[in-house]
Amino acid sequence: MRFDIITVLPALLESPFAHSILQRAQKKGIAEIVVHNLRDYSTNKQKSVDDYQYGGGSGMVMSIEPFAACIEKLQAEREYDEIIFMSPDGVTLNQSTANELSIKKNIIILCGHYKGIDQRIRDVFVTREISVGDYVLSGGELPAAIVVDAVVRLIPGVLNDETSALSDSFQGDLLDAPIYTRPADWRGHKVPDVLLSGHEAKVNEWRHEQALERTQKRRPDLLE
Amino acid sequence: MRFDIITVLPALLESPFAHSILQRAQKKGIAEIVVHNLRDYSTNKQKSVDDYQYGGGSGMVMSIEPFAACIEKLQAEREYDEIIFMSPDGVTLNQSTANELSIKKNIIILCGHYKGIDQRIRDVFVTREISVGDYVLSGGELPAAIVVDAVVRLIPGVLNDETSALSDSFQGDLLDAPIYTRPADWRGHKVPDVLLSGHEAKVNEWRHEQALERTQKRRPDLLE
Repeated sequence: MRFDIITVLPALLESPFAHSILQRAQKKGIAEIVVHNLRDYSTNKQKSVDDYQYGGGSGMVMSIEPFAACIEKLQAEREYDEIIFMSPDGVTLNQSTANELSIKKNIIILCGHYKGIDQRIRDVFVTREISVGDYVLSGGELPAAIVVDAVVRLIPGVLNDETSALSDSFQGDLLDAPIYTRPADWRGHKVPDVLLSGHEAKVNEWRHEQALERTQKRRPDLLE
Repeated sequence: MRFDIITVLPALLESPFAHSILQRAQKKGIAEIVVHNLRDYSTNKQKSVDDYQYGGGSGMVMSIEPFAACIEKLQAEREYDEIIFMSPDGVTLNQSTANELSIKKNIIILCGHYKGIDQRIRDVFVTREISVGDYVLSGGELPAAIVVDAVVRLIPGVLNDETSALSDSFQGDLLDAPIYTRPADWRGHKVPDVLLSGHEAKVNEWRHEQALERTQKRRPDLLE
């Protein structure tokens, strides 16, 4: 699977893609993550990629030409399944969207910055607009990293222990049960007896009850 | 405002905090962001911070002692308003939570990794659990960066143009209207005439209509 991310701040994305699971997925050749500097596709001498907005108002707007040049160069090299624009206006990302994207082959992600991007980029090129949540961020870079992380970890072979992803929160519509490790007693705060019992059926029953209880208390909407 | 972020992967957070608005906020002395390596607080010779989970099952669990040692060291230095744990089980982040956090002084953020953290860390230390959305990620690092970005940009003086943050999506319960910049005609795709009219009242009316229409179409829940 290949991600091409187009941004004015490629440096911002350096460390998130160079560690942990995303690093491992790239080393194994399972995922390829290429970050493109939008400024390299600027069509003027000042290397600018934004301009004042028509109709007046504060904030700069990212122009269509650099995005068009970068997208069309990539499209000439291979076929893309999706061109995603990260935007608070988009459809909110959830685990089912992450699952869906994890079986695609080539995805372009556009990161907005400043006031936003020229609407015609969205009208002409973008196939899908995704929001990571109802909050405003400085740009689409961290949201792009979130999408890549959520998707790549679902590709078979990326996680060391494949059962790990399957037992995650949301995959089974229940939140996780509480988990504990040593010491069994920490300053008087003890691990529940059942987890020390060695009785597997009882442990599983307790975990299911706890997961259900936590979901009912915190996220009753997931049970509907 | 000060953020102390506790993680096993401090390197992952290097570039997001070193660029753009978060860099500017730190240079101006408006925000201080300190990343702590949890391994420095390990209590054993192997520098381990995790262990097998009680009751069996795949995935490692982060132990309570290193977190306790790091949190208690910080608490001895200053008072903290919140100790936040980033978790898919938490309350979903929205703009109103970001606003609320932006007036706090000192905040600790704990990043989980692996299978998760010992439940007693959450019971004993954590004051607030926040989720950035209904999807599973490799760890709490990117979510922590999301929270810091969403919050810091709201602090007066961080954005160059303070009206920018006020006119963002969600601050007025409406999504943004479409925006455009030059050229007025790109391969036949034209900027709406009203934006070129120079008639401010008409521009404002059009923008409000468009914002309302987009919100009705994409996020009717915001209008309820």
